[in-house]
Amino acid sequence: MQKLDVAILGATGAVGQRFIQLLEGHPWFRVREVVGSQRSAGKAYADAAHWILNDSPPLSVARLTVKALDAALDSPLIFSALPKEAALARELDLARAGHIVCTNASANRMLADVPLLLPEVNAEHISLLEVQRRKRGWTSGALIANSNCTVMPVVMALKPLLKYGVRRLHLVSEQAVSGAGYPGVSSMDMIDNILPYVPGDEGKMETESRKMLGYFDGDGIIPLDMIVSATCTRVPVIDGHLVNISVELEEGPALPSIIDDWGAWQAAAPVPDLPSAPAFPLQYLDQIDRPQPRRDREAGGGMTTSIGRLRECPILGYKFAALSHNTVRGAAGCSIMNAELLAVQGFIEGFHVAQTAEAI
Amino acid sequence: MQKLDVAILGATGAVGQRFIQLLEGHPWFRVREVVGSQRSAGKAYADAAHWILNDSPPLSVARLTVKALDAALDSPLIFSALPKEAALARELDLARAGHIVCTNASANRMLADVPLLLPEVNAEHISLLEVQRRKRGWTSGALIANSNCTVMPVVMALKPLLKYGVRRLHLVSEQAVSGAGYPGVSSMDMIDNILPYVPGDEGKMETESRKMLGYFDGDGIIPLDMIVSATCTRVPVIDGHLVNISVELEEGPALPSIIDDWGAWQAAAPVPDLPSAPAFPLQYLDQIDRPQPRRDREAGGGMTTSIGRLRECPILGYKFAALSHNTVRGAAGCSIMNAELLAVQGFIEGFHVAQTAEAI
Amino acid sequence: MQKLDVAILGATGAVGQRFIQLLEGHPWFRVREVVGSQRSAGKAYADAAHWILNDSPPLSVARLTVKALDAALDSPLIFSALPKEAALARELDLARAGHIVCTNASANRMLADVPLLLPEVNAEHISLLEVQRRKRGWTSGALIANSNCTVMPVVMALKPLLKYGVRRLHLVSEQAVSGAGYPGVSSMDMIDNILPYVPGDEGKMETESRKMLGYFDGDGIIPLDMIVSATCTRVPVIDGHLVNISVELEEGPALPSIIDDWGAWQAAAPVPDLPSAPAFPLQYLDQIDRPQPRRDREAGGGMTTSIGRLRECPILGYKFAALSHNTVRGAAGCSIMNAELLAVQGFIEGFHVAQTAEAI
Amino acid sequence: MQKLDVAILGATGAVGQRFIQLLEGHPWFRVREVVGSQRSAGKAYADAAHWILNDSPPLSVARLTVKALDAALDSPLIFSALPKEAALARELDLARAGHIVCTNASANRMLADVPLLLPEVNAEHISLLEVQRRKRGWTSGALIANSNCTVMPVVMALKPLLKYGVRRLHLVSEQAVSGAGYPGVSSMDMIDNILPYVPGDEGKMETESRKMLGYFDGDGIIPLDMIVSATCTRVPVIDGHLVNISVELEEGPALPSIIDDWGAWQAAAPVPDLPSAPAFPLQYLDQIDRPQPRRDREAGGGMTTSIGRLRECPILGYKFAALSHNTVRGAAGCSIMNAELLAVQGFIEGFHVAQTAEAI
Repeated sequence: MQKLDVAILGATGAVGQRFIQLLEGHPWFRVREVVGSQRSAGKAYADAAHWILNDSPPLSVARLTVKALDAALDSPLIFSALPKEAALARELDLARAGHIVCTNASANRMLADVPLLLPEVNAEHISLLEVQRRKRGWTSGALIANSNCTVMPVVMALKPLLKYGVRRLHLVSEQAVSGAGYPGVSSMDMIDNILPYVPGDEGKMETESRKMLGYFDGDGIIPLDMIVSATCTRVPVIDGHLVNISVELEEGPALPSIIDDWGAWQAAAPVPDLPSAPAFPLQYLDQIDRPQPRRDREAGGGMTTSIGRLRECPILGYKFAALSHNTVRGAAGCSIMNAELLAVQGFIEGFHVAQTAEAI
Repeated sequence: MQKLDVAILGATGAVGQRFIQLLEGHPWFRVREVVGSQRSAGKAYADAAHWILNDSPPLSVARLTVKALDAALDSPLIFSALPKEAALARELDLARAGHIVCTNASANRMLADVPLLLPEVNAEHISLLEVQRRKRGWTSGALIANSNCTVMPVVMALKPLLKYGVRRLHLVSEQAVSGAGYPGVSSMDMIDNILPYVPGDEGKMETESRKMLGYFDGDGIIPLDMIVSATCTRVPVIDGHLVNISVELEEGPALPSIIDDWGAWQAAAPVPDLPSAPAFPLQYLDQIDRPQPRRDREAGGGMTTSIGRLRECPILGYKFAALSHNTVRGAAGCSIMNAELLAVQGFIEGFHVAQTAEAI
Repeated sequence: MQKLDVAILGATGAVGQRFIQLLEGHPWFRVREVVGSQRSAGKAYADAAHWILNDSPPLSVARLTVKALDAALDSPLIFSALPKEAALARELDLARAGHIVCTNASANRMLADVPLLLPEVNAEHISLLEVQRRKRGWTSGALIANSNCTVMPVVMALKPLLKYGVRRLHLVSEQAVSGAGYPGVSSMDMIDNILPYVPGDEGKMETESRKMLGYFDGDGIIPLDMIVSATCTRVPVIDGHLVNISVELEEGPALPSIIDDWGAWQAAAPVPDLPSAPAFPLQYLDQIDRPQPRRDREAGGGMTTSIGRLRECPILGYKFAALSHNTVRGAAGCSIMNAELLAVQGFIEGFHVAQTAEAI
Repeated sequence: MQKLDVAILGATGAVGQRFIQLLEGHPWFRVREVVGSQRSAGKAYADAAHWILNDSPPLSVARLTVKALDAALDSPLIFSALPKEAALARELDLARAGHIVCTNASANRMLADVPLLLPEVNAEHISLLEVQRRKRGWTSGALIANSNCTVMPVVMALKPLLKYGVRRLHLVSEQAVSGAGYPGVSSMDMIDNILPYVPGDEGKMETESRKMLGYFDGDGIIPLDMIVSATCTRVPVIDGHLVNISVELEEGPALPSIIDDWGAWQAAAPVPDLPSAPAFPLQYLDQIDRPQPRRDREAGGGMTTSIGRLRECPILGYKFAALSHNTVRGAAGCSIMNAELLAVQGFIEGFHVAQTAEAI
């Protein structure tokens, strides 16, 4: 099987590096183009990037020459880890030019014809791409976003509970510093300290969660009719966003039923067979002091959401904690899995993975 | 003015050390007896205690010989920083023997005739001591508790809002490690990590807050009729508990009114004149990313509660963050201020501070 | 191939857990017995151990019943993660009873007939076991130790330089908290702080490094004739000991020659083929700010020592930094690799791995 | 007494803020001008500065309008917390224009006619200003530097040992993040991690320490003839640089004599009477695990250097650890004390503090 060429926008940043790390050895995709700032363009990737993940960049990428942001790209598939401003027009331009653009940037997430895709939660939203192509006159191109990294553990944990009717949601996050990129949060703010505020994230949690859990009516996404109140805080943790969730359900299931729902939960085919899909999208931890960021974020290669502490909430009925790896499940890993779903569903022109089973 | 002799129970522990530090140079009290475990008894305090606060123990205390827990004590006033089990009977025994016991231990907090005193919030609960003495047949002795350290910022922030009618309260704390004593929380749990659970604290937040904000009806405390849902988490911070608070009020004051209520708020006399009272019990911080534990915990010598981020909560109406220094305002400092209030109100036999003004 | 049964002493502690984690899926060994304190004995391992590593204990071990420290053991091979006092007599008793005991405890390390084994550095010291067996009248049993975790990066880095004549060694370590076990170092000592002292380690660095780099003369180990000055400090890092090393060599090789020595270095057969041997025991990092604990400790699965910052020292001639994962290479991983070497060399009665190549 | 007007260059940065904090309530000086970048110029200080120290900026400064870097200044005394590039020409220009410039920047430290002043160590170097004025034709202006923050604890600790003849010095530092300013070091580098390299500091430790301990021969500073080898590392600590020091002395004093030298040591008049001088410039801590950054940096209001762990070094003879608060003693506090010395010695035209005693 011929692997599909991939370009990474914002390749030298924190999320860009995570894309490169996760794509190393990917069965379907291979990184062939890396795109960076003016300062980086023209340099070898290993020289341009201050690698902040473990070890060193993969050799195959280290030698690539960084391209400028406005350079024409050859790769059919593009992952974007651009900052918001840079992403705004560039992502649409590339999609218009025929590329499949899977973006982690927030710039275009809330456009009515851009799906906010998380395969285990709303694979059916992929059909919004047909609306997108029709409306914009695109044939091979498309723009698909993944959500804010703090929304992920919330919608993952709620998905199996939608059948009970989710009415109101109260969220208080404790977020890792990698969510702010590199250099991101100053060490002077994160030693013996927490920050009670994360710029921009509270609004995203309230809007993106409703869109992700919404209904595709053939024309657009009808957001889920629930009320969300979010508080976002920053804590001295490298990776792994923990969210303290209180939820009101229309029905009143017993606590053990909910735990069973989470444990048994699996997405419909073909999602569980995608290369980046974890064996279990959700796990419930019985220990009273879990999930914890450092100890649970790597579950399922960083793609499994860990839940714990389910108990009654005197106000909303139920409360629990949920944790996801914010730069794997919450960013690059989700984008890659979105692209895998597009590939399997035939949205990437000329690239077929009918042979899925063996490929995995 | 002759200073009053004071004994510290649990003097070698984290809170015991904070008592000693805060009482150094106190205008009314002086530490004359230090009480520790069997292992410490008979040693000089400086040798028995592994001093974990800044610098070294005050010289006046360093030379005292540690007494055993069951030793008879001479000091009229006793501060207890004992662990729960050790506190249970010993505190009552000492009160029965005629001592004024101001305790930070949780053991006896919820006894019906023990006031859970925080001078700025419920100074009038001190009258419960008359019930206590009458019921138990004590004349000079008394047992007064202060609340759990995480409850403090909550009840301090709510006090000026009681007039609006507090109905429901949703709390998510991010607590410092000093709340667990020394050695307390392992460093292996607090590097690149948070703990989503603090043993015992959620229940205390729900019960103690209602007692503290309750009404003394001449016979006992009628807890405030509000519904509380608490989640307690531990973060890598030395001192300073931050609580993310959502609250439902019967009336619907405008946000600026609430900020004014906080800024203008002051306790009734004689509380503001007590030696340990800060100039402002509450301060509202305008910066969007405050309060922060390291930067705001020392406000008012650790006795001022800092509030920030007041905004609308789509579920309960209002939300904000509040922060107190957990071992000063939330433990030793509060106990000392409680004793000051007792002194001023004439509850400490033979000790008069009518000359309050000059003393301060 | 039938796997060899293995027992873990001190199985519920931090190093014991690391043994269990590293032995999961081991090609030659499988954990069949776990030994703990009186408090743990009789319980299922999953209930007795407060698992502090990522995820949960492997299922195969979770179900084992913890045995008491004085229980008779069936496993031919025993790994000891006991505290010093507990290890002292018990390890010798078990070796006398015919078990192969590979210990991480410091208790018996400096016994004249106990090899302090690190396969890449001194595989030939294994011959000391013949002296041990002859002297003590043991036939199948043996006691083999690995060194203190902070000594590892030092002797690993020095091994390729021995040919230049190592005269004097000045060491300042910055050690991770996992070296002190769990709960080990209090979080109150490790937030916004470092400790300039690690009990016991400085002496070990000075004696154990000389023994490890020493010469086996057929009768015992003649320590290397070098002068060592060690300072050990503790820093807020989970895993990974970094040592700042200044060294005086008899010869004066150029800096690039030393870097070449490190890069090219490989142990003699059969060490590189042992299952736990990394592809490269040493790596030299060119980036000026490496090695770093979090980013480099996992190199080679935690078994590769990373070196960086080689430059001239105006006093001793050369200086550089070296880093090893202290609970993998510096503890459990080294003990396991020692056992692998014993197996290959025929020291484990009845267990043959002539089929080494395939097994790996 | 009329206070002297003071300007702060680089007033919005981390060291600039420390200047403002330490000058609040200063008996001789008051901040009247604050100078910042183009971005800040024209704004009120409270709006321009992202205050990173505790609490908020003093009200008297909060209201000042930030001036641009090239604005003419009225204050006779100027403290510079400029970045190196910005400092280079501007500091000399201001001194030429008649201002007394006390700088914390490294740009001009090693100029032959600029004293590197630390009052307790080399007050006599102030006479170099006469050379400076003569050579440059300045009358009222002068440029005085303080050293790199990591050099401070070293030269402070060595000063009383100079009588024994200091030959060789081996230094390994563990430095706080505030030394890099704000935002400075990324939190992604300082959670579960240390950095084995601090750009530029090793060279400064080797050259600046020799200049500071050097001899003023009437014409210039003859650096101390000692060999220095420095390694600088960064650790997750907010304030307080700890240096692990090994030293070779010509004479061989007993360890207790050295401790006595440190304990008894005091600078000659008028240094101990300067407003910012601590009661004890040095303190030796007997506890085996001290000094520690968080617990000892505030000694003497951040101006006392703490020393501990004196013991024999098998290579150089003696070793110990020394700690200073890097932004107080090691930066702003030292600059202020330098200015105080200049004032007392009559170097500030028209400003007399003959009344020193009362002023303090």
